[in-house]
Amino acid sequence: MTTHHFTPERYYRTMGAHPPVLTIASGDSVVTTTIDAGGYDKDRQQVSPRPNPVTGPFYVEGAEPGDQLAVYIDSLRPNRTYGWADHGLADNVIDPSFVRAIPRLEGVSEWHVDMDAGTATLVKPETALGNFSLPVRPMIGCFGVAAIREQAISTYTSAEHGGNMDYVGFGQGTTIYFPVFEPGALFFLGDVHALQGHGEISGSGIEISADVTFTVQVIKNKPSRWPRGEDANYIFTAGNARPLDQALQHATTEMMRWLEQDYGLDALSASYLISQANEYEVGNVFDPAYTMICKLPKRVVAPYKRG
Amino acid sequence: MTTHHFTPERYYRTMGAHPPVLTIASGDSVVTTTIDAGGYDKDRQQVSPRPNPVTGPFYVEGAEPGDQLAVYIDSLRPNRTYGWADHGLADNVIDPSFVRAIPRLEGVSEWHVDMDAGTATLVKPETALGNFSLPVRPMIGCFGVAAIREQAISTYTSAEHGGNMDYVGFGQGTTIYFPVFEPGALFFLGDVHALQGHGEISGSGIEISADVTFTVQVIKNKPSRWPRGEDANYIFTAGNARPLDQALQHATTEMMRWLEQDYGLDALSASYLISQANEYEVGNVFDPAYTMICKLPKRVVAPYKRG
Amino acid sequence: MTTHHFTPERYYRTMGAHPPVLTIASGDSVVTTTIDAGGYDKDRQQVSPRPNPVTGPFYVEGAEPGDQLAVYIDSLRPNRTYGWADHGLADNVIDPSFVRAIPRLEGVSEWHVDMDAGTATLVKPETALGNFSLPVRPMIGCFGVAAIREQAISTYTSAEHGGNMDYVGFGQGTTIYFPVFEPGALFFLGDVHALQGHGEISGSGIEISADVTFTVQVIKNKPSRWPRGEDANYIFTAGNARPLDQALQHATTEMMRWLEQDYGLDALSASYLISQANEYEVGNVFDPAYTMICKLPKRVVAPYKRG
Amino acid sequence: MTTHHFTPERYYRTMGAHPPVLTIASGDSVVTTTIDAGGYDKDRQQVSPRPNPVTGPFYVEGAEPGDQLAVYIDSLRPNRTYGWADHGLADNVIDPSFVRAIPRLEGVSEWHVDMDAGTATLVKPETALGNFSLPVRPMIGCFGVAAIREQAISTYTSAEHGGNMDYVGFGQGTTIYFPVFEPGALFFLGDVHALQGHGEISGSGIEISADVTFTVQVIKNKPSRWPRGEDANYIFTAGNARPLDQALQHATTEMMRWLEQDYGLDALSASYLISQANEYEVGNVFDPAYTMICKLPKRVVAPYKRG
Repeated sequence: MTTHHFTPERYYRTMGAHPPVLTIASGDSVVTTTIDAGGYDKDRQQVSPRPNPVTGPFYVEGAEPGDQLAVYIDSLRPNRTYGWADHGLADNVIDPSFVRAIPRLEGVSEWHVDMDAGTATLVKPETALGNFSLPVRPMIGCFGVAAIREQAISTYTSAEHGGNMDYVGFGQGTTIYFPVFEPGALFFLGDVHALQGHGEISGSGIEISADVTFTVQVIKNKPSRWPRGEDANYIFTAGNARPLDQALQHATTEMMRWLEQDYGLDALSASYLISQANEYEVGNVFDPAYTMICKLPKRVVAPYKRG
Repeated sequence: MTTHHFTPERYYRTMGAHPPVLTIASGDSVVTTTIDAGGYDKDRQQVSPRPNPVTGPFYVEGAEPGDQLAVYIDSLRPNRTYGWADHGLADNVIDPSFVRAIPRLEGVSEWHVDMDAGTATLVKPETALGNFSLPVRPMIGCFGVAAIREQAISTYTSAEHGGNMDYVGFGQGTTIYFPVFEPGALFFLGDVHALQGHGEISGSGIEISADVTFTVQVIKNKPSRWPRGEDANYIFTAGNARPLDQALQHATTEMMRWLEQDYGLDALSASYLISQANEYEVGNVFDPAYTMICKLPKRVVAPYKRG
Repeated sequence: MTTHHFTPERYYRTMGAHPPVLTIASGDSVVTTTIDAGGYDKDRQQVSPRPNPVTGPFYVEGAEPGDQLAVYIDSLRPNRTYGWADHGLADNVIDPSFVRAIPRLEGVSEWHVDMDAGTATLVKPETALGNFSLPVRPMIGCFGVAAIREQAISTYTSAEHGGNMDYVGFGQGTTIYFPVFEPGALFFLGDVHALQGHGEISGSGIEISADVTFTVQVIKNKPSRWPRGEDANYIFTAGNARPLDQALQHATTEMMRWLEQDYGLDALSASYLISQANEYEVGNVFDPAYTMICKLPKRVVAPYKRG
Repeated sequence: MTTHHFTPERYYRTMGAHPPVLTIASGDSVVTTTIDAGGYDKDRQQVSPRPNPVTGPFYVEGAEPGDQLAVYIDSLRPNRTYGWADHGLADNVIDPSFVRAIPRLEGVSEWHVDMDAGTATLVKPETALGNFSLPVRPMIGCFGVAAIREQAISTYTSAEHGGNMDYVGFGQGTTIYFPVFEPGALFFLGDVHALQGHGEISGSGIEISADVTFTVQVIKNKPSRWPRGEDANYIFTAGNARPLDQALQHATTEMMRWLEQDYGLDALSASYLISQANEYEVGNVFDPAYTMICKLPKRVVAPYKRG
């Protein structure tokens, strides 16, 4: 149970079988940093090209295809006060006939992130919103393992291995279970947001660099196809695809598999439970692949948990 | 401000310019009943063919195309203890390759709905879930006004006028604002659920008959394209279409229009607000048209409200 | 086998159980006219509001739900030389990020349709195309029967009953088999194009009024779910839905049913045939519902035809 | 203008910046072979794991990002008589409710491919089709260059760089223009079909190994985003995405760019031409990404060609 302190020197923009930056054991923790989606670090120096440069990969000893890699987010804290966001709504989240109604501005909007006050405040440009402030809710926008089928997939999008899912629930205290496709799993992380609306529908959250501590655990011989996760109140699955209907199919099917695998429920019993207790949440709907989350309250599923 | 007591004698299964069953004034309330999605009333007598027979239409004096019809749900309470639901998950919410894994049973599952205890309990069939109970959260599955373009649209689906949206947020204390397409608006309602998971992904919630009281208000000269609504904490819009991506575009665009119309925000200012504060919720993903809800917290938008 | 000469006096813009304008027998022919998608007749007088006003409905004696209505297009000929089309490409057929690149002009482009020369020539506006001429290929944009589930569906879109499918193959010499949903089937037709590219991607073909002769035949007790058809070389099915993937699923599934029903092929045999011999063609991709055509060469299927 | 004879010794299953197997000059031709989608060569020996192992990559001197790589298919001929295909229709091309109607068989169907007779005949299993034969039309199922954004994309799917597009038009005599994303372009090819229905809707065509000769040409400083092509009668573009609607948007937009770039047409003029003369064809609708082809007759566009 070692705690590693890792200072990244380079960043990847694809998730594939790249040479590991650090080898760690199951149970180990890593204290590290991430730069923002544009490649800017805590001193606002651009240390990588965009988009979504990620820290890693971390090779986890013993992880093999057919296992899951559990990643617990011990802590997640922006390490600067400057946040930025894209202007306007993305063209793909509004009616095609409404696209012309949204002005296209150069550059980004600027936000002041005050972690002690717990707020992010729009600083630039001046808008009809005046002094506009929202509560922070830090989350990891982009993380995952080396992709399926020996691919290297851009951190601009997402797939079975995770990637740029931009789900608001990926915050401190959450555990995510990634399917392992390559030896060592090869975990990457980056693209932290101080906060974000559902869907990342301007194309960004409040983009920021961060200090992150996470802990890994290899779960042997537990096949899965899509990221799973849990927090204090829910278990959940993530499906990544377009259209959103298909992402929803993936997430719902993965939840069915999970209930059969770990909760001893046959397909019909699992159906009754899911269909009346399920909640969906929308992750990224900006990227080439969209993300849908399928959630079940722990109070509903806990009685059936095996082992 | 009259309160009408209306006992339905017939039910429609399309929402169009049918002869009104009652003419009411803006500000009036109606105390009435709905039968379940299969046409069964509080005595479990089938008094209409399926699917989703609706009470109404109610002609609201003064409502004209270009207006909105506000409908406030004063009270909503199942009026029997027998609820039913479809078996299994619908074929369209799971991976196509997983369809064969779900058995297709005849008939329905039976649930005991105890409004005093606040629970719905699965009675039949026997499953691995054992004694399975969920908290009730009554909601109106299907309501709306006469359809756009002089159409009569099946209550099996949804569109600009509302319809079978199956959103868990359509419960007591909620106000919905429907765009008016025909003189008198012609309001219909039915298909109440004792509770439901997001998406109605088995093809049904816990289907039940109900006592409903609602109050209408005509809002003159306020064009809208999709249903809007509000509850204690949120304002929201509903988009209905396939794929879900398009429903999301409709809901997001309608929220943009609302912020410009009633909150004095230009497109760019509204974009900053929506993109960082927005929440999505999934309504029906079983019907020909899917439903997406775009929500904004009242605490965020309240400072900009005009008038 | 009567030939009726019918001069329309009113036009519908929904396909539902409207009062018939004429009752005809199975085997009868009708010589009639259609006005263009904007409601303009052969004298360029607007005699109906837009969009897509249709001639009919024709009540066909003996047609009942569960039957098919065969409609043979005996002849189809524009009856004026003035054609018009929408400017620009529709916003929904191009990348969302490309929408701003297409100027939005008021009004329509004007085309001179010369049926003797067999050409349609762009007259207005002046463009970089200079003297731009294309061969005519007249087709019926919008036709079908009263809609399923007692609905009245706008001629702006399409569904199980047909409607605004805008398939270039719906020309003279083609037979279409519509599923019957209401007694008498209630056949409507309109929205003729002098020619059109696949998809009707500007939102219109070369819109024109026309003289049409068609012959109907009731095919008893032959259930179908989507329009089917045949011409000299192919049998085909039409699926109408969004996204196009779903329209394709409907068309492919309907072809499977047809091969089982009339060609004595089990599902597996039909699969081999379809998967290696199938051709798809794209109908309308502008309307709320898109159209996909699934075609099989008659030379491939003929040997298996029963009866 | 050298002609290289290249015998592959290894095969890739992703298209990325792999070490080239041969460096060639612009204008050179290559005579080589491909193995089938399952990895079987002309002697029916499995020499690579599935799916879709590809020959290459060929490094083309002088090709840089921002250029196009033209690939002319000089000749394409299956080099064995054994072809195979998947059973049944894929689950994703039929209605979800129809999936259970299609039996799932192990293994593959077997076809005898007789290039002299020009036919492929179903040999196994025995079916209601009896002696079932179709004309051959050899095509390349999977080809392209190293992927965009430094990715390595599985040959199981397709994207901006090409890949598994399975378009029946990719036969002898066709030229394809790929956008170049990596130095040398890095061209791969494989997955030849003796013939195939549109969409590859069983998940395969008649899969076969082949002798292929192709010629490359670097077109400097001609940016493009999606594969383009031409044969004797048409120019065309390919879009790859899900849903098919989005593939169609990509293909249509790329055709607009091409008309502006090489034919001197502004966006509006190009719109008139495309909307009334366009034809769509469906490529692969089985893989994670679907393919749509947008075609224009050369007789229509030729008068505007520049240079």
